[in-house]
Amino acid sequence: MNYQKILEEIKKEIKPLFKDGKVADYIPALKRVKPTHFAMSLQLFNGATYSVGEENCKFSIQSISKVFTYAMALPIYKKEIYKRINHEPSGNPFNSLVQLEYENGIPRNPFINAGAIVITDMLESVYKGKTFSKILEYIKEVSDNNEIDYDKEVALSESQFGFRNIALVNMMKSFTNISNDTTKVMDIYFKQCSISMSTKELSRAVLYLANHGVDPITKKRFLNESQAKRLNSLMLTCGHYDASGDFAFRVGLPGKSGVGGGIVAIVPNLMSICVWSPKLNDKGNSLVGTKALELFTTKTRLSIF
Amino acid sequence: MNYQKILEEIKKEIKPLFKDGKVADYIPALKRVKPTHFAMSLQLFNGATYSVGEENCKFSIQSISKVFTYAMALPIYKKEIYKRINHEPSGNPFNSLVQLEYENGIPRNPFINAGAIVITDMLESVYKGKTFSKILEYIKEVSDNNEIDYDKEVALSESQFGFRNIALVNMMKSFTNISNDTTKVMDIYFKQCSISMSTKELSRAVLYLANHGVDPITKKRFLNESQAKRLNSLMLTCGHYDASGDFAFRVGLPGKSGVGGGIVAIVPNLMSICVWSPKLNDKGNSLVGTKALELFTTKTRLSIF
Amino acid sequence: MNYQKILEEIKKEIKPLFKDGKVADYIPALKRVKPTHFAMSLQLFNGATYSVGEENCKFSIQSISKVFTYAMALPIYKKEIYKRINHEPSGNPFNSLVQLEYENGIPRNPFINAGAIVITDMLESVYKGKTFSKILEYIKEVSDNNEIDYDKEVALSESQFGFRNIALVNMMKSFTNISNDTTKVMDIYFKQCSISMSTKELSRAVLYLANHGVDPITKKRFLNESQAKRLNSLMLTCGHYDASGDFAFRVGLPGKSGVGGGIVAIVPNLMSICVWSPKLNDKGNSLVGTKALELFTTKTRLSIF
Amino acid sequence: MNYQKILEEIKKEIKPLFKDGKVADYIPALKRVKPTHFAMSLQLFNGATYSVGEENCKFSIQSISKVFTYAMALPIYKKEIYKRINHEPSGNPFNSLVQLEYENGIPRNPFINAGAIVITDMLESVYKGKTFSKILEYIKEVSDNNEIDYDKEVALSESQFGFRNIALVNMMKSFTNISNDTTKVMDIYFKQCSISMSTKELSRAVLYLANHGVDPITKKRFLNESQAKRLNSLMLTCGHYDASGDFAFRVGLPGKSGVGGGIVAIVPNLMSICVWSPKLNDKGNSLVGTKALELFTTKTRLSIF
Repeated sequence: MNYQKILEEIKKEIKPLFKDGKVADYIPALKRVKPTHFAMSLQLFNGATYSVGEENCKFSIQSISKVFTYAMALPIYKKEIYKRINHEPSGNPFNSLVQLEYENGIPRNPFINAGAIVITDMLESVYKGKTFSKILEYIKEVSDNNEIDYDKEVALSESQFGFRNIALVNMMKSFTNISNDTTKVMDIYFKQCSISMSTKELSRAVLYLANHGVDPITKKRFLNESQAKRLNSLMLTCGHYDASGDFAFRVGLPGKSGVGGGIVAIVPNLMSICVWSPKLNDKGNSLVGTKALELFTTKTRLSIF
Repeated sequence: MNYQKILEEIKKEIKPLFKDGKVADYIPALKRVKPTHFAMSLQLFNGATYSVGEENCKFSIQSISKVFTYAMALPIYKKEIYKRINHEPSGNPFNSLVQLEYENGIPRNPFINAGAIVITDMLESVYKGKTFSKILEYIKEVSDNNEIDYDKEVALSESQFGFRNIALVNMMKSFTNISNDTTKVMDIYFKQCSISMSTKELSRAVLYLANHGVDPITKKRFLNESQAKRLNSLMLTCGHYDASGDFAFRVGLPGKSGVGGGIVAIVPNLMSICVWSPKLNDKGNSLVGTKALELFTTKTRLSIF
Repeated sequence: MNYQKILEEIKKEIKPLFKDGKVADYIPALKRVKPTHFAMSLQLFNGATYSVGEENCKFSIQSISKVFTYAMALPIYKKEIYKRINHEPSGNPFNSLVQLEYENGIPRNPFINAGAIVITDMLESVYKGKTFSKILEYIKEVSDNNEIDYDKEVALSESQFGFRNIALVNMMKSFTNISNDTTKVMDIYFKQCSISMSTKELSRAVLYLANHGVDPITKKRFLNESQAKRLNSLMLTCGHYDASGDFAFRVGLPGKSGVGGGIVAIVPNLMSICVWSPKLNDKGNSLVGTKALELFTTKTRLSIF
Repeated sequence: MNYQKILEEIKKEIKPLFKDGKVADYIPALKRVKPTHFAMSLQLFNGATYSVGEENCKFSIQSISKVFTYAMALPIYKKEIYKRINHEPSGNPFNSLVQLEYENGIPRNPFINAGAIVITDMLESVYKGKTFSKILEYIKEVSDNNEIDYDKEVALSESQFGFRNIALVNMMKSFTNISNDTTKVMDIYFKQCSISMSTKELSRAVLYLANHGVDPITKKRFLNESQAKRLNSLMLTCGHYDASGDFAFRVGLPGKSGVGGGIVAIVPNLMSICVWSPKLNDKGNSLVGTKALELFTTKTRLSIF
């Protein structure tokens, strides 16, 4: 298939959509981003890559970081993880406290904020004070790339305006589902959300998820097969908040979005993808990014359904 | 692959599980069924079939009927369907009124009871008084089998004890999301839940869903590609109530379960499957059936992830 | 105190408010009523009565009927009543299903619809088929007045459009908190809501509640002291749906409103009051009626606070 | 009436109840209190006081502090207060986040924790850094008593374990219903809950509420009549969390309880009361204290109903 041609077509076809959607504005540091950014990158098992748009422009990965922290925690905690987080879609916005209260502080899944905060807490129980540098290290390793860092300004802005996330962590602490100091956990969490990567880097970083847990280029194993299957099925059912069902239908690939406008997606046994465009739809996912992925699976017939 | 051998292995391996779970007892007519029934059937595109257990024993298809009525309504109503039903996982039990109230009478998806009742109402608006016979006719056609009927005793029992479903339909009527007389709609709904089929018949009946909407044997088209993709993605994200995420991980196939103990599943481009065993797990899905399907995708590596 | 003069003043002062509010329109039979009706009646222990406006004009008592059915059930069931209904304010609209579901079919109090339906069911378990005529008989007796009946057209309209109430009764039935046939119970309930009375009749009918359960004129005892206290405290904390706190502050008297625009209120040890005006505020209580009562307690300083 | 004799009788009659209930244990500093403490004090308008039990033993006033902060804020903010807090009973536990989320960060009333925290925030906007000393000063003034302080150990314990309250304040901040720094607001709030007073002091401190806002002894006015009525009606409808309806029935007086085991109550135009006993019933109110007040209004017939 001529992937480069397909990407160029997509770039043309999504243009009319730039007028729609809205850049995330819950923190000042995010709302300054130019709304018409666009980039899309494919990463194949043989090392080939294809891109359109600003493939090297770094953006805030935000909730895409949840994929990496979950992938770190899964081999350490194994089934223990299920005692502290469920693995079902939530049917509620990503930062809802309601369900958390009815379910006694147990988050619905690791991809809503509450669940990701519990994962960060679990990592902190292992890495005691070194968690954030371990997270960065992990992402560098799966990316085979040492040039990855976080944006201090975004992290500061998150910590100054992240009242709802602070509410979540304190509520879970009241249910004893947070083991470490809440301020420490949130400091790590806000930093992990502020990691900056380009579509080229992110598509490379999730390639091992398309290959049952093994990076097909470096041959390093990061997850066993069952764990990789868990992560992929979780991305399909819970990767896009309350639009996960819609994404599964339109795109038909396991994926994870972030409010920075990025989306990663996996074509099992074939490739990984990352698309970025900052304006979000009303469910909080990249509007142009979702459409670009939909065009991609329509054109390539690579939907898993 | 030696499918028959795999089925025989599964039959052996699931035996220890018959002591667990609980037959559905919400209506008297269902709780009389023998708890140790088991059958599993595969239907391939070339017409080949493989079965173990009581492949010809008929059981109440219950919520599996939702797949057929949704498949009937989709080509008639097309995008109109989204005005009356959402398509996202629910994060609540299949018969919850809470979400329905907060979302103004719009069900979360067509596979929870409220959503399926709206679909039945939509069909009744088209078939005016002939809806149930049209449903039966449709199932006979997709099954290529004239010997399908419903169980009058089960239907009567449903209508006598289905108070929560009657609550659902009246609540939606109060939000004007039901167009026809509530008693008529429920009469059809209770009958469609009471249709009796064997695993052999059901696996045949959903074969077209594995082939983009076209029955690969009779070559008849029932859905266009996009509609078939919608149905398959819906089965994956919403097919098993509040255990849909778990089913996606363990089995990794689009599927739909019913409280009668049946589960249908689809291997895209390859085959359709039906398994039956009446005892349910605490989420209301066949306990042995779920395990049998998990063993099947583990042994065959046919999970879509 | 010159009660007649006070009533005349009130009548003048409420005039500018007739432009606000909205007549109940959930059933066709109610929305036809003229929006500018107004009447207010006081009934003293010595038999003296004072009225302004259309004191003999009959209107639909609607939820005020809940006071009478509860007063009938309390001496029969005594503490048994608490097993099937709580007695706390609800913090939710009068017809909410949410709280009912979370509290397993046990209504918050006897003055929300669900609670009143349970009371009707409890009466039907005693009066088997004669419940509605017993309710009418009871109201005639406490009113010392044989000329009270229900409006057949309103009752029919209720039964044709009362989908949410039918949802409530079926939901409670699914939790086994309804003993009799749901259709029978609702037939009685819709009729009791359709009873027609004037402010003069209603103020007379609740006089015994101001006198610890004994009609001060006929000397008949209907409730013991503790039961009368229960009813009065219930009217104060739960008598006006989600505006009960506001009514307690503004008016400061135990009272009960109905969507027909009527409100009854009690000045303990002194008198009973009824006011009527059909336009409702956004919480479903008579807008002019509430103001009239507020003016009354301000002028007379008869608030219990 | 021989109040002293009545108090002595009550003291005897409540003895068998000491075996029931449970001392508050959500913070370590509270659970150390001896469970069999008991004291009850009456304060009359003419200065006469009556007490039984440990009338001078100080205890943590906890939520009773909400009465004082609300009484401070009401004359400052007047109707502005209603923009940030509703005044209706909640139908949910005192620290529920659910209702707060559905109602966009507006607490149901000033007597649940969320509402009281908003009041503290409103005071901080006025007193900028001096709020807690102003609260202490106010309580000293209404008590006509300079010997009132807070318990530093309890305040510290609250701040170390008050995760749910920290969740509440952050959630409201995310809805912009908190104007000041959340940590500062909580520091004040935890201190006000930790104020220590005896039943004798507390009964004196709320005397002005029984007299339309004017201390009948010092003749100082703290609230106007309408504000005093607002506070009293609020205590009746919302003063005891999800047992407010039950308290209104059993006791029939405006009152406010705290998890320290104290309850204050008002007999309008006559006296104020305080009772203390640390073991709580399952709704979080003093078990023995509630019973003592019930016995008091039964013996004296002073219920407002």
